[in-house]
Amino acid sequence: MPLATIEWVGGLDGHARLIDQTLLPTELKYIDCEDVPTMWNSIKRLAVRGAPAIGIAAALGTVLGIRGSEASDFNEFEEELRHVANYLGSSRPTAVNLFWALDRMHAVARHNANLPIDRIKEVLLEEAKAIIEMDKTVCRQIGRHGAELIADGTTILTHCNAGGLATADYGTALAVMFAAHEQGKRISVYADETRPLLQGARLTAWELMHAGIDVTLICDNMAGLVMKQGKIDCVIVGADRIAANGDTANKIGTYSVAVLAKQHGVSFYVAAPASTFDLSLPSGHFIPIEEREGNEITCGFGKRTAPEGVKTYCPAFDVTPAEYITGIITERGIIERPDADKVRKTLGAQSQPG
Amino acid sequence: MPLATIEWVGGLDGHARLIDQTLLPTELKYIDCEDVPTMWNSIKRLAVRGAPAIGIAAALGTVLGIRGSEASDFNEFEEELRHVANYLGSSRPTAVNLFWALDRMHAVARHNANLPIDRIKEVLLEEAKAIIEMDKTVCRQIGRHGAELIADGTTILTHCNAGGLATADYGTALAVMFAAHEQGKRISVYADETRPLLQGARLTAWELMHAGIDVTLICDNMAGLVMKQGKIDCVIVGADRIAANGDTANKIGTYSVAVLAKQHGVSFYVAAPASTFDLSLPSGHFIPIEEREGNEITCGFGKRTAPEGVKTYCPAFDVTPAEYITGIITERGIIERPDADKVRKTLGAQSQPG
Repeated sequence: MPLATIEWVGGLDGHARLIDQTLLPTELKYIDCEDVPTMWNSIKRLAVRGAPAIGIAAALGTVLGIRGSEASDFNEFEEELRHVANYLGSSRPTAVNLFWALDRMHAVARHNANLPIDRIKEVLLEEAKAIIEMDKTVCRQIGRHGAELIADGTTILTHCNAGGLATADYGTALAVMFAAHEQGKRISVYADETRPLLQGARLTAWELMHAGIDVTLICDNMAGLVMKQGKIDCVIVGADRIAANGDTANKIGTYSVAVLAKQHGVSFYVAAPASTFDLSLPSGHFIPIEEREGNEITCGFGKRTAPEGVKTYCPAFDVTPAEYITGIITERGIIERPDADKVRKTLGAQSQPG
Repeated sequence: MPLATIEWVGGLDGHARLIDQTLLPTELKYIDCEDVPTMWNSIKRLAVRGAPAIGIAAALGTVLGIRGSEASDFNEFEEELRHVANYLGSSRPTAVNLFWALDRMHAVARHNANLPIDRIKEVLLEEAKAIIEMDKTVCRQIGRHGAELIADGTTILTHCNAGGLATADYGTALAVMFAAHEQGKRISVYADETRPLLQGARLTAWELMHAGIDVTLICDNMAGLVMKQGKIDCVIVGADRIAANGDTANKIGTYSVAVLAKQHGVSFYVAAPASTFDLSLPSGHFIPIEEREGNEITCGFGKRTAPEGVKTYCPAFDVTPAEYITGIITERGIIERPDADKVRKTLGAQSQPG
């Protein structure tokens, strides 16, 4: 991917720069975040979205929040750090990478508690940049592992956007497609438009077209029909949080696609980095599900399309139980038919820093 | 319902008047159709939609098409009638009520072939008005039969709009809800917004709110989650064409809802008049599925929401196999667990005139 979804520009007095994804595909515009509220707002309103990218946004947001600190000792500094982390953590409750990144930044600060405060600030910026680099490597590894599942001529259905725009540059679910395509395999993709915010129509279709991959856009409610017509060989989606037993929270509608896939004998894969696992949660039952404003449903296209005052229900995510998942593609390999044992074996204890 | 979705105004020199449903819910505006192309266009662009209403539109369109005839004998008149019918029949291929109404008008003309041409024109207008009256009666009967299935406190999920706006005044799937509500039963409804044209958001939510029925609007891809959460007691939808074995074509996405309902042990009902059955088709495999323009997906609301040039697939309907259907609610009673035998027993031979 030629575009940097999210990056840091300059030194400690620089800023975070991210693509305003709410304007795609009609407009490619960047937001320069100079302070934490701008970053919080960018996460909240989905200018930056996708679990890994949100993690990076949280790490960069932490730097923005503490670089001006005038703390006289580490305790004071740590207090400010906690304050920044709590604030950033309130932006989106479901994506675990956000908390993973905040915890990681905090751990690095503590690990360097003996350094002068100004040096700790530098170390935190280096760490945030390291998270970006790690994300790129992890995405490439996910792509490489996942591409082994993809035969020449495969047609894949995906939901929402787990592409370069959801990460620092290569995606998770889309990484598998990019890698298979780079290996010369001819693949086709059906992209669910993904209501209410149309990440599939706006972002996934755009990324795949740019990569030269054959993509057909459908409404979410057409996924069942195209499976029934035998058009789909497998489903690959991303994840926002994965419980210890493999239950996976992802964009609303993923669960319906998983049920339909099972019904039609279509393989259903989740592609996600180890940082998306939350081993503290025994099952998906414990994953908090963010509810968003109903106007995403009633006036999602800049035009009111439902009666004034209508009640809405607008969950941003749903949880797909592990029994619907053929495999979870991680940078450490594929967890086939995931359960608590297999997840633990693949991830070990490393996935939860701090 | 206080509003006349579609009616005839005045005598033979009058016109058809219909609500332009593309403007709802923000604007309530009527279209006066003085000629056949205006009616054809109204059907094509879904200003009038819903299988029974399309049947009525076809009957009124026939009157518009032949009232100016200067034919000197019945053969000549019948030739003109055929021409009008072929033209109207080309507007939307899936809704069988359209062909049912055209055939019925033709049969009535033939039956009165011995009358003067001007008198036949009058008879055809009377027949079109009779179809409207019959539709009202049929909808009330569907409501009465269906309401027997609805206990106090039931929560129903519906897809698309099979309400008063899809018929002359009371609906089919929504007739069941209106009737249950009138009986004093407390019901709640989840309405799928129904992409791409949002008939659920624009029309169903509007009708139910006007009737004082509790309605919650969701995106189509949330149906699986609300079923998993145990919120839904039953699904009721309309139909555009039902084959002899009970396989049912309805708005795209209905099949996915049916699969999800079965998976969650939720009853799935279809509500439709006998005129929606096409006994000439042994199964849903033979129902032609209309494909519509991709711009309904890519710029459905006056704003482009997908990349220029993206490929789309835009089927307007899908077919739900009979094995997913708990019952079909008709004006003649409920066909439980439908199959070819039960459909034949309930409908007899009367459903296909001509």
